[in-house]
Amino acid sequence: MRRPASEVATGSLFGIALNYKGLLESRLAEFDQPPYQKPPVKPVLFIKTSNTRNGHDRPVVFPQGVERLQPGPALGVVIGKEASRVSEDEAMAYVAGYVIVNEFSLPEDSYYRPAVKAKCRDGFCPFGPDLVPASEIADPHALPLKLFVNGELRQENTTANLVRDIPRLIAEISEFMTLHSGDVLITGTPEGRVDVHPGDEVVVEIEGLGRLHNTIVAEEA
Amino acid sequence: MRRPASEVATGSLFGIALNYKGLLESRLAEFDQPPYQKPPVKPVLFIKTSNTRNGHDRPVVFPQGVERLQPGPALGVVIGKEASRVSEDEAMAYVAGYVIVNEFSLPEDSYYRPAVKAKCRDGFCPFGPDLVPASEIADPHALPLKLFVNGELRQENTTANLVRDIPRLIAEISEFMTLHSGDVLITGTPEGRVDVHPGDEVVVEIEGLGRLHNTIVAEEA
Repeated sequence: MRRPASEVATGSLFGIALNYKGLLESRLAEFDQPPYQKPPVKPVLFIKTSNTRNGHDRPVVFPQGVERLQPGPALGVVIGKEASRVSEDEAMAYVAGYVIVNEFSLPEDSYYRPAVKAKCRDGFCPFGPDLVPASEIADPHALPLKLFVNGELRQENTTANLVRDIPRLIAEISEFMTLHSGDVLITGTPEGRVDVHPGDEVVVEIEGLGRLHNTIVAEEA
Repeated sequence: MRRPASEVATGSLFGIALNYKGLLESRLAEFDQPPYQKPPVKPVLFIKTSNTRNGHDRPVVFPQGVERLQPGPALGVVIGKEASRVSEDEAMAYVAGYVIVNEFSLPEDSYYRPAVKAKCRDGFCPFGPDLVPASEIADPHALPLKLFVNGELRQENTTANLVRDIPRLIAEISEFMTLHSGDVLITGTPEGRVDVHPGDEVVVEIEGLGRLHNTIVAEEA
């Protein structure tokens, strides 16, 4: 049975950076520079704080004093029970279901600085409309994912291109922190992020999960 | 009236890095290097996720496979009402009170990588014992702060040495994200962090706020 995502995904929202193959490849050169010297060997996590929670058909505010805003189409994995040191083989048993996420961010040209200011503006994490039970998704690693702006297809990819698949993410994250029922893993946004502007209608579509719609609005003075 | 901190500080836990003068000065050289090129001009925020929530007299687990663990004595500022784009002049009216925080972290030699894995282990953010109402603290910027390990004084500083004071933190953070009642600003930990080990008794003492005690325990296999 499908339920509104906001009733189920009540926990922490964990973002995973650089988790699409095309995006990671486009960044490899930069990881030869200081301070990294090499590509990340573990998932690069960030947090979408609770003030970023937002929903289907809700406005997303283009902040005052900001030059650019980018949507981030992503598959969200909703955890169904407490997960600590879970193996990859067991990991999928901890998944309650899936939700469409649009992980809005201010563009950053590096992964060095803490990303709170770029990723944690109010309402910057719409998700929904529904939590789709895991039982309804035959293969979460073969889902076409599309971003439309004003009806025009602007980004297209598939969860087949995740660098780390869902079992690996759950295993590597639960190795060092306990995941709880209602937590959401935002599995990553693909390369080719686009800018949006006040007045734009933004839709993320994931096959089998439906469409998540938001309107970009200017911040009131 | 004092209430248990866990009943009041129910929101997000925001950490502020590099907010003691001695610590920032010790790091300045590194900010001349790539990728920063200059010291941070805004507060460097990090998140203590909800799995890090912990309390007075509760154990703190020394994680398996980790070499070093460091306590982080800090003054916590508990927000009392929704704060968005608050000016420094108005900021103190949004403070419900204060709490002792011990912001445990795995030591990191850089501020570049997202700090989730170092700062968000289960139970890594004890706070308490009580929320001390703002009305009981004459000057939150003149509070001696001490860390004791097994009864021995190991760190000593004062909130007079904050780089950004409380009104400035509230103003600069609420400028880009809404703070809510029950959110906690962890105002920073001073330089000179020390290592602790399983069996250690750790106490953070802040004048007027009392003592926060935790015992370090080894993780069970």
